[in-house]
Amino acid sequence: MKTIGALLFPEFELLDVFGPLEMFGMLDEFSIRLIAEKERTVASTQGPRSLIDDLFADDRAYDILLVPGGRGTRREVGNPLLLDWLKRKAAGAEYVASVCTGSALLAKAGLLDGVAATSNKLAFEWVKSQGPSVRWQSRARWVEAGRFFTSSGVSAGMDMSLALIARICGEAQAHQAATWAEYEWRKNPDDDPFAVEQDRA
Amino acid sequence: MKTIGALLFPEFELLDVFGPLEMFGMLDEFSIRLIAEKERTVASTQGPRSLIDDLFADDRAYDILLVPGGRGTRREVGNPLLLDWLKRKAAGAEYVASVCTGSALLAKAGLLDGVAATSNKLAFEWVKSQGPSVRWQSRARWVEAGRFFTSSGVSAGMDMSLALIARICGEAQAHQAATWAEYEWRKNPDDDPFAVEQDRA
Repeated sequence: MKTIGALLFPEFELLDVFGPLEMFGMLDEFSIRLIAEKERTVASTQGPRSLIDDLFADDRAYDILLVPGGRGTRREVGNPLLLDWLKRKAAGAEYVASVCTGSALLAKAGLLDGVAATSNKLAFEWVKSQGPSVRWQSRARWVEAGRFFTSSGVSAGMDMSLALIARICGEAQAHQAATWAEYEWRKNPDDDPFAVEQDRA
Repeated sequence: MKTIGALLFPEFELLDVFGPLEMFGMLDEFSIRLIAEKERTVASTQGPRSLIDDLFADDRAYDILLVPGGRGTRREVGNPLLLDWLKRKAAGAEYVASVCTGSALLAKAGLLDGVAATSNKLAFEWVKSQGPSVRWQSRARWVEAGRFFTSSGVSAGMDMSLALIARICGEAQAHQAATWAEYEWRKNPDDDPFAVEQDRA
């Protein structure tokens, strides 16, 4: 049983979190924890609020870290407590995954230096500015770089999550999860219709 | 400003709720309320828990009702309080939408008698048994029948929601929401790769 810890902060993007967690939650192999710095409930950009399972102070370990995007990332790149927590928890995690501008937080924490990564194309310039040493990929649905999986905007997080499930449990399990969700898995990480820039890598 | 009320019950399907709410939440035209019978927090099938905005006793009105599926629907078809609430709130709503086995609840409440509707294909026989007078469509990503929008399994709910946004706000707004979410909107309600039966309608 692997534990996925999804980091929530005020104004997280709803689907960045719950798209991936739907896919992982389809399988018995994963258990899910929602984490926040110190708030027991956290509101998304869209309004709906989630109940938190673990606070930073609980200092639990997670096999997989999931970092969403959303408007709140613009504030959290300036939150040293959150960046420090990310650095410590990523060190102990088997995989670290981000959706949308979640990669800006990973970049700002220094976790992606020299690592290939991507993000939402609508916020790409800002995200890049958070980590000048990251090998940013401007044309990618998602990027797999060792234990780091970073995805493009919101809905690409579901495709990336299925790829991560395939890495951990095998492709048949990932297909099972997608079929149960009646989700048409886009399996090609390079298929990025929302890319507006050519890959500069 | 239109209010969307999303009905939650224990073991609701995570993406059935938050896929659609992501799409509506992209636009300033909609505000979102999470509703439950009497619990202030409700756990999804996948584990994550949501904080509830309104209880049945609050007796608020909603412009759009959203009814998800999930394991909990198997229990809630036997909950007269919930079915009665659905009937009363649907009467006052401009649109009523369901995802996955959410249509079993609408059917059991008698709201879909004589109405064309669909549901998750993996649970189709059970769903049909909840409403013998419904004109069930076995091959459809989603079905629009007047003010009733019913969608197939989990991820089809996002496509249906964009179609409902297009109905309410126009197609340009729906495209904007999809683009901001970097979501590839499948706009053809008849494109249903998960249908396992021929349309018997």
